[in-house]
Amino acid sequence: MVKIAILGYGIVGSGIMQVLEQNRVHIEKKAGCAVEVKRVLDKRDLSKELPSIYTNDFETILNDDEIQIVAEVMGGLYPAYDFVKQALLRGKHVCTSNKELVIKHGAELLSIAEEKDLNFMFEASVGGGIPVVRPLNTALTTDEIVAISGILNGTSNYVLTQMSNLGKSYDEALAEAQHLGYAEKDPTADVGGFDACRKLAILMSLATGKQVDFEEILTEGIQNINQIDFAFARAFGFTIKHMIDGRITPSGVSARAVPMLVHQSSPIAAVTGVFNGVMVQAKATDSVMFYGRGAGKFPTAGAVVTDIVDIAKHLHRHIQFSWSSEKIDILPFDSYKTRKLVRLRENKTENFHMAIPAYPGQIAWLTQSETDKSTKDSLKGLNVERILRVYEPMETVYDQNN
Amino acid sequence: MVKIAILGYGIVGSGIMQVLEQNRVHIEKKAGCAVEVKRVLDKRDLSKELPSIYTNDFETILNDDEIQIVAEVMGGLYPAYDFVKQALLRGKHVCTSNKELVIKHGAELLSIAEEKDLNFMFEASVGGGIPVVRPLNTALTTDEIVAISGILNGTSNYVLTQMSNLGKSYDEALAEAQHLGYAEKDPTADVGGFDACRKLAILMSLATGKQVDFEEILTEGIQNINQIDFAFARAFGFTIKHMIDGRITPSGVSARAVPMLVHQSSPIAAVTGVFNGVMVQAKATDSVMFYGRGAGKFPTAGAVVTDIVDIAKHLHRHIQFSWSSEKIDILPFDSYKTRKLVRLRENKTENFHMAIPAYPGQIAWLTQSETDKSTKDSLKGLNVERILRVYEPMETVYDQNN
Repeated sequence: MVKIAILGYGIVGSGIMQVLEQNRVHIEKKAGCAVEVKRVLDKRDLSKELPSIYTNDFETILNDDEIQIVAEVMGGLYPAYDFVKQALLRGKHVCTSNKELVIKHGAELLSIAEEKDLNFMFEASVGGGIPVVRPLNTALTTDEIVAISGILNGTSNYVLTQMSNLGKSYDEALAEAQHLGYAEKDPTADVGGFDACRKLAILMSLATGKQVDFEEILTEGIQNINQIDFAFARAFGFTIKHMIDGRITPSGVSARAVPMLVHQSSPIAAVTGVFNGVMVQAKATDSVMFYGRGAGKFPTAGAVVTDIVDIAKHLHRHIQFSWSSEKIDILPFDSYKTRKLVRLRENKTENFHMAIPAYPGQIAWLTQSETDKSTKDSLKGLNVERILRVYEPMETVYDQNN
Repeated sequence: MVKIAILGYGIVGSGIMQVLEQNRVHIEKKAGCAVEVKRVLDKRDLSKELPSIYTNDFETILNDDEIQIVAEVMGGLYPAYDFVKQALLRGKHVCTSNKELVIKHGAELLSIAEEKDLNFMFEASVGGGIPVVRPLNTALTTDEIVAISGILNGTSNYVLTQMSNLGKSYDEALAEAQHLGYAEKDPTADVGGFDACRKLAILMSLATGKQVDFEEILTEGIQNINQIDFAFARAFGFTIKHMIDGRITPSGVSARAVPMLVHQSSPIAAVTGVFNGVMVQAKATDSVMFYGRGAGKFPTAGAVVTDIVDIAKHLHRHIQFSWSSEKIDILPFDSYKTRKLVRLRENKTENFHMAIPAYPGQIAWLTQSETDKSTKDSLKGLNVERILRVYEPMETVYDQNN
């Protein structure tokens, strides 16, 4: 019998209780012992709802030596960070769905866990119900990761899919996403690319074993994308997706969370609606993609329970990869060498032999591989409306000196 | 330090040696101890190539109590089955890439492993480098699997992709696949659907916990698919894929490995070339897809090494789901209720209002959900050239009484 505490009884917290209850037999078999929720902490008074296990006092949990695993699903940095750190220092394993916590303090918390032969797991913090962190952790054992790319924000992907497939405007598609509960009232974190950027920082930190600061990741949102962009994208055989795109190359590490042109034949182009899809490229295994729902009560709760079971199986051994707090330098924003679509507000075809006029009065063309900086230089004096980068599955190269 | 033996030093066996060597540091960290290859068995004389570890005598391995893990990558049933069974009975863990062995004796070998608190792992036997068995095993802990579908044979998928994208004939595409080493000289196991059928039997056995006999799975190959089929598929918005399609419903379990119409918007349609893609649908997590290379030296060897590391972490505990040798009944072939494309050799449009004449002198239409049997009955007297089932991602229902 292993006893656990759940911090936070919101949508995910109550989902964990339900998943544990409904799958009791399987969980006991897999974990090698029964899993019992001994305490649930929440700031709301739940003493009537959960009479025997509710507490609003973290000390009760901290001082209870029977509790070996703490599942933190409160969200936010405070008091989550203090609670998690104290739990680890007191010898308790922790799993969390809290992206902010992992990106800000993951390195420190993992190093405490490693030192104390504990596990600090966070599968649910990236990609909800899609297994990403665990396979990445496994892949790192036998292979060398060279790229992590794909779609990690369901809200942006829903909006872009509606725009692409049904011809809706950005505002219409966003309003619909809000109506359906796929977007927050203030959608900035999602449509501005910040959520995807943070998830990428976590995955790149795991892949490199060092601290990738999310502030250094080139981040752009989808708010300016319009039907003209889609018309040109289609004319060249692409669609538009909000992509995370991290590369580990001999010349350095790069990372960006930006709208990109994705070729229609790419499996990533087929990731539509609120679904997420993460492509991991490694030297020996080549490309592996994980696809599924990136959010939602039960997918997320299920991912937390998977961590709980994994911890229950390894109560006496740290089994994860860690990342050190040493910062890794990310290549500067303008050193990306990728093809780009350049769109002009006027139809100056005489200068651009390869330009396609997919929209009245406008033209666009695909540049060859040039850095952001050299592209900018060559466009001086032109009436540029939009530059969209092309997602290159394999061959993107970087040049620090340009 | 954990010591292992490798049975079979072909492409995969030598790949395992290389992966273990190249990732020594990571493997030791993840496994919690170093992994050393103490013996390699092969029927060819490798005493010069592997002087200190080569043996052609299985007894040497069996009687060596230092060897805790046996990796069987010989292929075929004999002597692989005897070797693996003896190893388990002598208290050694086993992992294998041998699909034949797993489908025929998986239930028995897993039950011996469970009884003796050992592990018998076989990630590499289904889908090469794509993690499928392990995530399925994990998902079973917290969720209820309702469907497993997708593409599990890279050869068939390569041939169909070439036919679809480049307009090649079946014979041209197959010859090219053979030339590139993607298809065997006798390609029947792959293009006839038998390889995919066996992999599906393994996955369905795991998902149901009972024995799914591959002989009971409806299996059809792609040998008859031609450009006329693709023309009609496209006219209805589909492409053609060789699919595995297993369902677990209240009215029973169904399984088939057949060419199907897959809608162009499905992520499965985007799985092209030699790539595989397996969609697992579960009640809480919804759809999760795993995509990658289903074969190849390093993807397969990497999957075996992943099993070795997992076993090294769990030398004293059986951590898998088992399947019992109790047979589970598969719904009869003709009870599938799915839409179908029916293609006639003549253009009798007067009788079929929804029929599309996508090819000179021929028509086709999509039937509504009817069983195979009732479809057949309603087509009596017509000049039917082809019937192709439609892959229905979610709602396919079955009726045992029809």
